[in-house]
Amino acid sequence: MAQVKNKQVIFKDYVSGFPKESDMIIVDSTITLKLPQGSNDVVLLKNLYLSCDPYMRNLMGNPEHSFNPRAYTPQSPLAGYGVSKVLESGHKDYKEGDLVWGFTNWEEYSIVPAAQILFKIEHTDVPLSYYTGILGMPGMTAYGGFFEVGTPKKGDNVFVSAASGAVGQLVGQFAKLHGCYVVGSAGSKEKVDLLKNKFGYDEAINYKEEQDLDAALKRHFPEGIDIYFENVGGKTLDAVLLNMKLNGRIPLCGMISQYNLTQHEGVTNLAHLIYKRIRMQGFVVVDYYHLYAKFLEFILPHIREGKIVYVEDIAEGLEKGPAALLGIFSGHNIGKQVVVVARD
Amino acid sequence: MAQVKNKQVIFKDYVSGFPKESDMIIVDSTITLKLPQGSNDVVLLKNLYLSCDPYMRNLMGNPEHSFNPRAYTPQSPLAGYGVSKVLESGHKDYKEGDLVWGFTNWEEYSIVPAAQILFKIEHTDVPLSYYTGILGMPGMTAYGGFFEVGTPKKGDNVFVSAASGAVGQLVGQFAKLHGCYVVGSAGSKEKVDLLKNKFGYDEAINYKEEQDLDAALKRHFPEGIDIYFENVGGKTLDAVLLNMKLNGRIPLCGMISQYNLTQHEGVTNLAHLIYKRIRMQGFVVVDYYHLYAKFLEFILPHIREGKIVYVEDIAEGLEKGPAALLGIFSGHNIGKQVVVVARD
Repeated sequence: MAQVKNKQVIFKDYVSGFPKESDMIIVDSTITLKLPQGSNDVVLLKNLYLSCDPYMRNLMGNPEHSFNPRAYTPQSPLAGYGVSKVLESGHKDYKEGDLVWGFTNWEEYSIVPAAQILFKIEHTDVPLSYYTGILGMPGMTAYGGFFEVGTPKKGDNVFVSAASGAVGQLVGQFAKLHGCYVVGSAGSKEKVDLLKNKFGYDEAINYKEEQDLDAALKRHFPEGIDIYFENVGGKTLDAVLLNMKLNGRIPLCGMISQYNLTQHEGVTNLAHLIYKRIRMQGFVVVDYYHLYAKFLEFILPHIREGKIVYVEDIAEGLEKGPAALLGIFSGHNIGKQVVVVARD
Repeated sequence: MAQVKNKQVIFKDYVSGFPKESDMIIVDSTITLKLPQGSNDVVLLKNLYLSCDPYMRNLMGNPEHSFNPRAYTPQSPLAGYGVSKVLESGHKDYKEGDLVWGFTNWEEYSIVPAAQILFKIEHTDVPLSYYTGILGMPGMTAYGGFFEVGTPKKGDNVFVSAASGAVGQLVGQFAKLHGCYVVGSAGSKEKVDLLKNKFGYDEAINYKEEQDLDAALKRHFPEGIDIYFENVGGKTLDAVLLNMKLNGRIPLCGMISQYNLTQHEGVTNLAHLIYKRIRMQGFVVVDYYHLYAKFLEFILPHIREGKIVYVEDIAEGLEKGPAALLGIFSGHNIGKQVVVVARD
């Protein structure tokens, strides 16, 4: 059986502090495009689109010093969400030619347990790459986090950090659709323009140009914030806590500003949670995947009618993956960062 | 109309940092024990028992720098929860001789709006002082915070800080009654003994003798904590966050370790809330007073049968009030700190 080249992004070793491109190595390995005889419950995938997500930083840390048990294995390929095509299936639910999204490896071809596939892709009139974003994990994150954890009401004042990112851009649009007043923060003029002109945020803050985030929040939320959709943590959270309204909610989606710090910034204003009866609640998207069919029913018509838009930042080629992934930690990306391995 | 002496504890001026006895002044004023003609909706009270509670520290701060709008007025009496006898009533719901508990002033006699009375005292076979504690605000705080916010399940692992305090000693006993495993922390050998031998905590930690609270928690909770009933904040919260279990709950009752700090300690481990899907929720007892009748039905039989006990630290005389109040911030009190103004 002929072997083919299988380019891979190898995770070199555990990272502390800010990861570097040299923490990942591009390797040309080979693979036989055939499942070994008797392979049950595994699938052979051709990976098409790979997703760059903040949580991946946590998987790079030494699990001995981290709270994430699913850390990457040094000298093995990086892994993450992706869109793939099934080349061969050892599992009854999948067959050759199926398009799927789920957890795969950062390489051209992967043999993975079928259980790593989350959903078969049924709708292909929208860009396939959307299944790494608006129709994939980040979309479900925004949906579960905003609607289920945030419990929004019409007229609520909503603040979103990392507001043009893979999740944030959707939270802002969901909030507008729900009749909320929405302000987002991001780290460049270009992103702030996107927030206001593309995603429909009522107001936008360039946090890099604000000397005093507390003052900026008071300017935009004179009556306070009902829902803070938390993507960044640290100083931003501390400023937000001073501006929450009674009975506010803080869905904790991520704390990207903290992931590369050896010692996280201290949050000093937690006592505000008490008198204002605020619910601050961590959540993980996997707890909401059972809502995926309902989510698609909600979002696909909005996409088709142009009522919800999605901005992607596309890196062409697996070899661009490491730089693309690192870029999301410095805010280099504009919108959802995707790596294209192949288009079909 | 004859005037009588009315001893008062006057709040001198806004406090920053740790309050001192000299921030409060004992004054002998006078009062006419008769409501002015045409006084509607006010009552004349003889104060019997006054309650020393941590939240009072927040009312001492300058409201310009604080988030509590009900700050004390300099040169006026201190105020707080208390048990009083109605001497004269301008309100139809109360009459002379009624025993009541609610918000009153730190003085022998007070004329206050009847709306400051929370409940008429119907059961006097238990100590009257209990209505500043187990049958008053702290009791309802423990009840609402543990059962309504903490949503305990049988078998849950529960950790309580300030565990022998007015609220903590009840949370521990409620948790045991509910079939939970309960560990408390307190700051002296005497308190630790109380926790284990009087309140029925499974284990107790003397936090002043632990070099490493994280290690102590891991020792007592090898499988992690389901509910952390938060009374202290700061470093304790940070250590607890490392030891929470999946889907844990953290009812935020108070953060007494922080109230006298000009700059609160930074909490660095909040990211643990995310992956573990933890709900950290501030609450205020007033949101649970509608459950008071149900609460009495639950707790009175337990008190009468000796199945729930309550330890009080009694200061005799209003002039002992300032020292008693300050004592709760240095952990001087053993159990609920009460000031006796008069016994009937």
